[in-house]
Amino acid sequence: MSEQMDGNDFVDAVVNVRYAETDQMGIVYYANYLVWFEVGRVAWCKAKGFHYADMESKDRHYLMVAEASCRYKTPAHFEDEIVVRTALAKATDRVIRYRYEIRRERDGQLLATGETAHVVADCNHRPARLPDRYRKYFSLQCRPKAGTLPDSHRPAST
Amino acid sequence: MSEQMDGNDFVDAVVNVRYAETDQMGIVYYANYLVWFEVGRVAWCKAKGFHYADMESKDRHYLMVAEASCRYKTPAHFEDEIVVRTALAKATDRVIRYRYEIRRERDGQLLATGETAHVVADCNHRPARLPDRYRKYFSLQCRPKAGTLPDSHRPAST
Amino acid sequence: MSEQMDGNDFVDAVVNVRYAETDQMGIVYYANYLVWFEVGRVAWCKAKGFHYADMESKDRHYLMVAEASCRYKTPAHFEDEIVVRTALAKATDRVIRYRYEIRRERDGQLLATGETAHVVADCNHRPARLPDRYRKYFSLQCRPKAGTLPDSHRPAST
Amino acid sequence: MSEQMDGNDFVDAVVNVRYAETDQMGIVYYANYLVWFEVGRVAWCKAKGFHYADMESKDRHYLMVAEASCRYKTPAHFEDEIVVRTALAKATDRVIRYRYEIRRERDGQLLATGETAHVVADCNHRPARLPDRYRKYFSLQCRPKAGTLPDSHRPAST
Repeated sequence: MSEQMDGNDFVDAVVNVRYAETDQMGIVYYANYLVWFEVGRVAWCKAKGFHYADMESKDRHYLMVAEASCRYKTPAHFEDEIVVRTALAKATDRVIRYRYEIRRERDGQLLATGETAHVVADCNHRPARLPDRYRKYFSLQCRPKAGTLPDSHRPAST
Repeated sequence: MSEQMDGNDFVDAVVNVRYAETDQMGIVYYANYLVWFEVGRVAWCKAKGFHYADMESKDRHYLMVAEASCRYKTPAHFEDEIVVRTALAKATDRVIRYRYEIRRERDGQLLATGETAHVVADCNHRPARLPDRYRKYFSLQCRPKAGTLPDSHRPAST
Repeated sequence: MSEQMDGNDFVDAVVNVRYAETDQMGIVYYANYLVWFEVGRVAWCKAKGFHYADMESKDRHYLMVAEASCRYKTPAHFEDEIVVRTALAKATDRVIRYRYEIRRERDGQLLATGETAHVVADCNHRPARLPDRYRKYFSLQCRPKAGTLPDSHRPAST
Repeated sequence: MSEQMDGNDFVDAVVNVRYAETDQMGIVYYANYLVWFEVGRVAWCKAKGFHYADMESKDRHYLMVAEASCRYKTPAHFEDEIVVRTALAKATDRVIRYRYEIRRERDGQLLATGETAHVVADCNHRPARLPDRYRKYFSLQCRPKAGTLPDSHRPAST
């Protein structure tokens, strides 16, 4: 991953560092960056046109976290205004990957980068396919309906 | 509430202060004491003979927090071993009240005291009665079955 | 405390409920309201003209929490936009008290009310007086300088 | 990294899943695994013979997190007793790497694996060398004193 996100596919969310998020080192505790990644994902969904809350409450599907990683470059401090930049890294109808940049707003200083991978799951937390109505948000083409498969995808027949 | 809990009705739980729980003042962030109260309540339930998790998963009833308060006396620090002492303060089949003492293990120093009040709720988060099988844990007498009410509780009739 | 804050002395801060703040009851975990109170206090300071971070980093004084309480009326949910309304309840140069209202933005529904009390402390966490330059923000009159005490405050002398 | 930690160099810590750690999916929120990693590191230090708190308070040196990653296999639930298994993955006197396994105690089910990397820093949060007295805990040989460098390490001279 390049340290600089290009293209138009990223979404920015602003977070003010809370006292609760600091630790006795005087900087933000490392696990809280993953919370900010979540704030970034939720903002990404809103910017794309849907609420993640609806995917859970209305469609009974979940994006369960399968992997998360973060590289910490420069510490964040209490009352820093930070920008969480979120981009879709890759999407299939079973696995969604995001990547993130955390920057200090006042000078653009890069504080951290990270990635998360999410498995689409049903209400029993079993692997599932992304509900059709969400495919467009992740730039996934609509799945062809039964009987409309192009020739090349038809099962072989005699 | 007296600062010293008397009687046999309290339950102790031990917690090691986590780095995550500190803030940049070098002491434990104040909201985390409410998390420790929860640790104390869960230990209290276990000591009484049931798992709070079962009340939710098997009986579909919840103890929703209605009030919480904490008085902070002496700060807790990273790696302190602390004792959460929990006692039932009052119980009806609709409202449960607990009180807590937080002490440092190595010298018994009182760090904080607190109280919480919980409303019994059903799976729709509506006020409900405590399921019968939990009444004994809260020292509540069994409710008489229909038709077995003592005279004094019968609706007046001519 | 009246449930409705009057006057001009309150400050509003907006918070979007994070997934991290929910628990398995499907609502916001109770300790997180105290984090929101902190967000409200920080916003109150900014609105009054100073940064709480500066009181710590430049003046080496701290507002240590001595008491906190919260009454939970209606649960907050993921993606709710909530308003934290903060008002100074009482201030001396040794103890500061705030009170709070948490409301859901879309319909004004009251979710919770609360109070906190803070003791002014020096860098050793010992009780101290509020540094002079912060007195005005808390509507405290300036302390008279040495030698200018009115007669009635002079130590008795023969 | 193999999923099974071998050798004798790991240390186990037991954690009871707190209600506060769950989210509305009914499982533990993903950032909390990084908090458990910290619990594991602190236990590892104790098992090796020192308190991490002392490195900060007495030696004014810090292990600042530079990288963290986690792979989530099976969700953890409220009241699960989990085991955090921590091992030193690699150590120099500037960078320390740990790896972790999170297992459910009752059946040994692997819930997650992870790694963290830490940079040794001084009290100004600048890169530093591990204080000598901690070298043994990380299986680092003592640094030779000035004037005792073997020939091969002497700066070249004509």
